[in-house]
Amino acid sequence: MKGDQKYRDEILRLARKAYSANEVPVGAIVVDGDGTIIGRGFNQTHTKKDGLRHAELVAIRMAQRKVGDWRLEKASIYITLEPCLMCLGAIGNARIKNLYYILSDPLFGSVASKLTKAKVRQLFPGLNIEKLSGGTEVGQLMREFFKKLRK
Amino acid sequence: MKGDQKYRDEILRLARKAYSANEVPVGAIVVDGDGTIIGRGFNQTHTKKDGLRHAELVAIRMAQRKVGDWRLEKASIYITLEPCLMCLGAIGNARIKNLYYILSDPLFGSVASKLTKAKVRQLFPGLNIEKLSGGTEVGQLMREFFKKLRK
Repeated sequence: MKGDQKYRDEILRLARKAYSANEVPVGAIVVDGDGTIIGRGFNQTHTKKDGLRHAELVAIRMAQRKVGDWRLEKASIYITLEPCLMCLGAIGNARIKNLYYILSDPLFGSVASKLTKAKVRQLFPGLNIEKLSGGTEVGQLMREFFKKLRK
Repeated sequence: MKGDQKYRDEILRLARKAYSANEVPVGAIVVDGDGTIIGRGFNQTHTKKDGLRHAELVAIRMAQRKVGDWRLEKASIYITLEPCLMCLGAIGNARIKNLYYILSDPLFGSVASKLTKAKVRQLFPGLNIEKLSGGTEVGQLMREFFKKLRK
């Protein structure tokens, strides 16, 4: 399942939706144990004036509502960008099993950049974390966004 | 403002609301720069089947809607319990200035228990964190909740 092109295409599509809305282009999906996408989100913090509308949190909330439980123990989350501390916490709290992300975020990323991998393992021992390929496309989208922002 | 009895009474009242709803009894408020309460929350994760309904996140979302901005740079948050990683991340992302909490949480608390104070300062240099007195009442409420839960 990991790295399935379908999932990477979907989070990139969601990131582009954020980009079109002048939001930092981040997309996320939650996939359940049988491979069904049960949550989708893209960053909407500025549009909604709501700091909790990171792509990951939107996708997790949708998934929790869909399954009727805050526990998503067999689920995986796919994200275009390394998650921030808030989103890592939400992923861990929801007991999500696998976290796949594409691009590192040296400023706010909390699974390898701002926290060490060892620390994250200690905080959430059951969470498997992997970085996927595909960084070129996501990186280009991020650079285009920040170029547009500076104009 | 810090430790104002009014604010402690209010978060304890909110924690009791969570207790009455059979939720882990946690209450939180966001107070703006002039002392007005602009956000209130109590834990509702089980009732709403929504892992994002921690007291802190409910209070932050309300405050962000009220001021029409995800930045709460002059605000303080008062919480009955040391916040988890997700809530610390949300507090830091919202650029909240002061974090006051009453009871430590050795299992999930992330401002002193699971992360070191030094690490938290490094993650959010602008965030002032203080532990307030009043732990006896909050501790008793927590113990009563877990006693009830075991029955």
